[in-house]
Amino acid sequence: MARFFVDEFPAEGTEYTLTGENAEHARVLRLRPGESVTLCDGQGADCPCTVAEGLTLLAGAPVPCPAEPRARVSVWIAFPKADKAEHVIQKAVELGAAELVLFPSRFCVSRPEGKALKNKLERWQKIARSAAEQSRRGVIPAVRAVESYGEALREAALAELPVLFYENESGYSLHDALAELGGLRSGGPDASGGRPMAAPTVSLMTGAEGGFSGEEIEKARAAGMKICTLGPRILRCETAPLAGLTAVMFALGEI
Amino acid sequence: MARFFVDEFPAEGTEYTLTGENAEHARVLRLRPGESVTLCDGQGADCPCTVAEGLTLLAGAPVPCPAEPRARVSVWIAFPKADKAEHVIQKAVELGAAELVLFPSRFCVSRPEGKALKNKLERWQKIARSAAEQSRRGVIPAVRAVESYGEALREAALAELPVLFYENESGYSLHDALAELGGLRSGGPDASGGRPMAAPTVSLMTGAEGGFSGEEIEKARAAGMKICTLGPRILRCETAPLAGLTAVMFALGEI
Repeated sequence: MARFFVDEFPAEGTEYTLTGENAEHARVLRLRPGESVTLCDGQGADCPCTVAEGLTLLAGAPVPCPAEPRARVSVWIAFPKADKAEHVIQKAVELGAAELVLFPSRFCVSRPEGKALKNKLERWQKIARSAAEQSRRGVIPAVRAVESYGEALREAALAELPVLFYENESGYSLHDALAELGGLRSGGPDASGGRPMAAPTVSLMTGAEGGFSGEEIEKARAAGMKICTLGPRILRCETAPLAGLTAVMFALGEI
Repeated sequence: MARFFVDEFPAEGTEYTLTGENAEHARVLRLRPGESVTLCDGQGADCPCTVAEGLTLLAGAPVPCPAEPRARVSVWIAFPKADKAEHVIQKAVELGAAELVLFPSRFCVSRPEGKALKNKLERWQKIARSAAEQSRRGVIPAVRAVESYGEALREAALAELPVLFYENESGYSLHDALAELGGLRSGGPDASGGRPMAAPTVSLMTGAEGGFSGEEIEKARAAGMKICTLGPRILRCETAPLAGLTAVMFALGEI
């Protein structure tokens, strides 16, 4: 069923005509009278509609979007080379990320700034919108950038579960971090067991092609990030954030 | 550290000279005398070596590869369009898949056969080898194809945990399938809890762009596959197998 993000829902029982990009998209889909489509407010609500004629829809009553995860997971990635950011953004939105934040780090080869960054962010936001529509999300995750690694750490560390995945860490895993969080929340030692816990806020941070420097890892630890392994296999920089996101979503019962 | 797959390990303390593709790869890497490299037998063992000079190495004693998962997870994907198979193969090898098997299904647009399939399989196997080296795997996962959906089902269903991910399933999840497996193994109802269980054999099956038909799902169920949801967000056909693989690897303590 086609989905269109709109600024505001029409009142129930009234007509609404698709405009702009939505109209273009609808023309490609060749909507037929009587067909069901969904308008989304981008805030987690869906409005089921029926095509009246052409681009005009008849609105039903809004309902909560069933595809929005309860957990709010921010995905923090160091600027990667080439079009890898596009890949990560598209897939992370499908997998339920709440937002994507790009940051510079010591070993980043790509460090877009100014006009170049602005253009990239516009393009990335369009990719996020399109992935949100396609995967039936109820919100369009924001894609943004911060200016420094320090700023990234300060903000990412505010989450209840602030994780940085590091290829040279081997002892401490996401299982440990989740168990610690479960213990903090319940006062008991084993609350992260088989059952999904109530949705926490999560930050997942991964490096660029060259990974993080030892100094950067120490800064992250000092800022409050949990330094975790993603297992003994070395993941590419575009694979790691998606693997981390999937594992967290699974652990929290969102998959 | 560079890794090279070889047919047989040199005896400890003897010299070994890289040849063929390994030699080409080593020239690109510009190995220096004294540098550590690893030979892999592709069977899960590593042989640590030191560069003597040029392409000649001095062999140490073999050890088990630390990056091989204990769980044997086969990833079964319906032939996708374009170069999506390459993407899935590369990432699935990084994430620890034991093998990749492609199969035709009703809604497949791409159905390579004969010479075209042979060429694709050769190319896919090279991608698997390269991803195995890069991610420090101890084996090169095989990439193969079966001729029919029925054949795929018969073989995939032999695993202890045979899962087919279906976008129209919503009630039964991978958590349920793992809990059922844990119950079968221990005789108790709750063995899939927080702790990773001993490594089972797993098959994970996903569809092509158009998904599976209702009839195909019934056939799968009859063959013994567990029909599971991957959550309420609709994943692209190249995202679903990697999300399923990551979730299983996390649940089994391999991540």
